[in-house]
Amino acid sequence: MNESADATTGEEVKEAAARIADAVVRTPVLESQRLNQRLGARLRFKAENLQRTGAFKYRGATNAVRLLDEATAVRGVATHSSGNHGAALARAARELGIPSHVVMPENSVADKVENVRAGGGNVVFCAPSQAAREQGLADVVRATGAHVVHPYDDARVIAGQGTAALELLDDVPDLDVIVAPVGGGGLLSGTLLAARTRDTPPTVWGAEPAGADDTAQSLRLGAIVSEFQPDTIADGLRARVGDLTFPIIRRYAAGVLTVTEAEIVAAMRLLWERLRLIVEPSSATVAAAIARYPEHFRDRHVGVILTGGNVALDRLPWQT
Amino acid sequence: MNESADATTGEEVKEAAARIADAVVRTPVLESQRLNQRLGARLRFKAENLQRTGAFKYRGATNAVRLLDEATAVRGVATHSSGNHGAALARAARELGIPSHVVMPENSVADKVENVRAGGGNVVFCAPSQAAREQGLADVVRATGAHVVHPYDDARVIAGQGTAALELLDDVPDLDVIVAPVGGGGLLSGTLLAARTRDTPPTVWGAEPAGADDTAQSLRLGAIVSEFQPDTIADGLRARVGDLTFPIIRRYAAGVLTVTEAEIVAAMRLLWERLRLIVEPSSATVAAAIARYPEHFRDRHVGVILTGGNVALDRLPWQT
Repeated sequence: MNESADATTGEEVKEAAARIADAVVRTPVLESQRLNQRLGARLRFKAENLQRTGAFKYRGATNAVRLLDEATAVRGVATHSSGNHGAALARAARELGIPSHVVMPENSVADKVENVRAGGGNVVFCAPSQAAREQGLADVVRATGAHVVHPYDDARVIAGQGTAALELLDDVPDLDVIVAPVGGGGLLSGTLLAARTRDTPPTVWGAEPAGADDTAQSLRLGAIVSEFQPDTIADGLRARVGDLTFPIIRRYAAGVLTVTEAEIVAAMRLLWERLRLIVEPSSATVAAAIARYPEHFRDRHVGVILTGGNVALDRLPWQT
Repeated sequence: MNESADATTGEEVKEAAARIADAVVRTPVLESQRLNQRLGARLRFKAENLQRTGAFKYRGATNAVRLLDEATAVRGVATHSSGNHGAALARAARELGIPSHVVMPENSVADKVENVRAGGGNVVFCAPSQAAREQGLADVVRATGAHVVHPYDDARVIAGQGTAALELLDDVPDLDVIVAPVGGGGLLSGTLLAARTRDTPPTVWGAEPAGADDTAQSLRLGAIVSEFQPDTIADGLRARVGDLTFPIIRRYAAGVLTVTEAEIVAAMRLLWERLRLIVEPSSATVAAAIARYPEHFRDRHVGVILTGGNVALDRLPWQT
């Protein structure tokens, strides 16, 4: 297989970076000596929780809406999303002056629903299943004629998400390894493509909750698993890996590392304490994987994509 | 009075910036559209919670230890501190390869004690009063011969703290106003001196908890108040304004705005939610002041120094 067989290419990630540069925050890369000591590696954290709308998803959404032709754009955009993509698409649409419709499971974190509405999005609730999401979205499209921007299984979105890793590699060119979490796989596949734009690509790992390990299972099976019932605190990682993202992950990723819920919560607290950043459980999944599988990271220079920071602050996961 | 009468000058702030540039994190300046809308001003947050040791205090401590002659440095440094200065001095001393001793009130936040020890500092506990702190420090100096670096009433420290505002003004030259919290006054006086290095200096306000409003009281009185019993959640702001810092504040500050404990807690939560940053109550004091006194900030371009992010995460102030 050659790279041209991919849904998206490294070249498209570079083009996306130029296309969205004036809209996104060039998020800082942070480091903690105490974390480095604790985890036995030099860790550089790309703080996408500081991105607009609080997550890397704003990159892919902005790239997608900026690629719409005018006749399509005017009818608006729609998506289903566990939250961050919805908020990102709503904001990106508002910046373009077009409407947006976001189908969300009714058990979504309240803060994420509020984020979508704050961005100007019209929220449409559905039952918390993949089938209900897809039906809800079909209904919205029929009613409005809106253009669907899928949260991850969309070449424009994959390219946009890859721009986070591209910036990280521009700032820290000598990374040995990059780790990104995998839900639907948009960020991981974009990161893989970004890494391959380098003369000496870093190794790229995915990290996944054991309670939503469809990607790890699919890699073992050699095909996307059909049955999948996610059960994890990492609400951003509950989606099933996509038809476009899975082949890219299968071709280029070193693998997908799985971690337990307790490991995610412990890593989340550790990141809050040492980086003084509010990060979601999805982001903590990566730090948990580095702690759990030191053989892949020890003494290496590791880039970590911190995906988002949209967390309800009433009660924290480590509080019983 | 002319500027040469000050304990420190803007020129010394510039010199400090060059002296410590390779040791400090050039912290990012962050913004939230939703916060801007909520508070009716354009707010640019200098995120010193992302500074090494989690607070701006590392700037002043590093400037001070780098100015020591070798004969003095070798005997080590000592201080009393509610925590952040202690952690900063310990880390700055370790980087220079010299010992440090930190006198801390026995009711200090556990996380802050741990930060001092993690930096390599020797912690010496004392009763939670100004007199006990000073006695404890005198005892340490007698026993070790260490050189005292005061948390704020020290020209080297004031100059170092001012470098945060200098960076902020380099990144955002057209600020109308800067707001910094005031405890002992090191940050505010350094910020005032940094502001005066500009051709058109921004207006600079202090923000202070009503439960530790010694600076506001002292400004009204025209002299530093003698009786002072702080009672505030903002543990970084419990110190009394200093003999060196007060004259600078009195000469150049637009004033010191006071806020209630409830206002501080509400602002802290708002900052966590909207900036996705973990900031201490001391930092929230500034956002609370902007919310409370809109007449000074409405529609203006406002720089905010977020001082630190060392917070115990077991229970948060808004949880009852």
